[in-house]
Amino acid sequence: MISDNLLKQIAFIKEIDKVKYIQRKTKLFNSDRNENDAEHSWHLAIMAVVLAEHSNENIDVLKVIKMLLIHDIVEIDAGDTFIYDTQKNHTNTDEERLAANRIFGLLPEAQAEELIEIWEEFEAGETKEAKFAKSMDRLEPLLQNTSNNGGTWAEFGVDYDKVFNKKKVIKEGSEVIWDYAENLINESVDKGILKKI
Amino acid sequence: MISDNLLKQIAFIKEIDKVKYIQRKTKLFNSDRNENDAEHSWHLAIMAVVLAEHSNENIDVLKVIKMLLIHDIVEIDAGDTFIYDTQKNHTNTDEERLAANRIFGLLPEAQAEELIEIWEEFEAGETKEAKFAKSMDRLEPLLQNTSNNGGTWAEFGVDYDKVFNKKKVIKEGSEVIWDYAENLINESVDKGILKKI
Repeated sequence: MISDNLLKQIAFIKEIDKVKYIQRKTKLFNSDRNENDAEHSWHLAIMAVVLAEHSNENIDVLKVIKMLLIHDIVEIDAGDTFIYDTQKNHTNTDEERLAANRIFGLLPEAQAEELIEIWEEFEAGETKEAKFAKSMDRLEPLLQNTSNNGGTWAEFGVDYDKVFNKKKVIKEGSEVIWDYAENLINESVDKGILKKI
Repeated sequence: MISDNLLKQIAFIKEIDKVKYIQRKTKLFNSDRNENDAEHSWHLAIMAVVLAEHSNENIDVLKVIKMLLIHDIVEIDAGDTFIYDTQKNHTNTDEERLAANRIFGLLPEAQAEELIEIWEEFEAGETKEAKFAKSMDRLEPLLQNTSNNGGTWAEFGVDYDKVFNKKKVIKEGSEVIWDYAENLINESVDKGILKKI
């Protein structure tokens, strides 16, 4: 007899394979190949492992990693929203919440509840773990764009003010990483790969 | 002043982007698109999160996740070795060890040592965490191949005995998951997508 829990978990594991098909706007490092959500989530999870020491507060790294591994799963139904999209707000749309209920709902009840809660916590960005996780999510594309001659900033005409406003939340997770990131943003202006109007 | 640790960590984070280009032999679920190592590692890490309750022993889930996130990084230098390759042994080649030293060696010393140790522990497969991590690594391609009409088994003429011998280590990590996996292997023979000679 195969346990009912296991069968539900396997159904979830099969479903989330679709995350590998969701293309982000950002490209891989020094590359013109778009990154997908699974690759992105893997990278952020490792970044959290190696950068945890720079968090402003003592964090539960396992919780941060869980957040990062699952944070884009809702995009299976809701699609990827470009962070600089002016038409559609990225955060906590009803569409994303429906997606979370459907996809995490494939799991056994207690587990579904735990992961939906972790996802909501990430989206709200208020706890120390969510703040650090968000700082990872903002840092990776900054590293990518600076390696790609401006990347999505150049491609979609995003200027310094917009970048600065989106990136400054890094500071809430890590002052140390924000110092580095702010420096990188200013350097990008100097190099002419980010426009300051 | 940006800390020396952070600069080393950023160098590592940039280097491991290459994992996204390493193609595995196995294909995504119900697909003819090859999986890459980053996608694979992401999937295994989430599998560990949702399947941990089935481990034979109480495990440190954070350690298992770290193992799974980093287990294929050495392939940046050493390349992916097909698990049923008859020419080249997959485990712990000198080439892989050199790769581990070079790539994890980009990190601050203590962190490099920690991750090399975790990678060695995974490769040795002797601790309860390594056993559970290995069971995840064996389960994912089994699920993929059964979703793909035999997948790499059919493509490379791998028979039941070889599959059984590689997959049976799942039992060391989880008897519960092994029951499910063994069942799936037997069903595959019945369906004619895995040859039993």
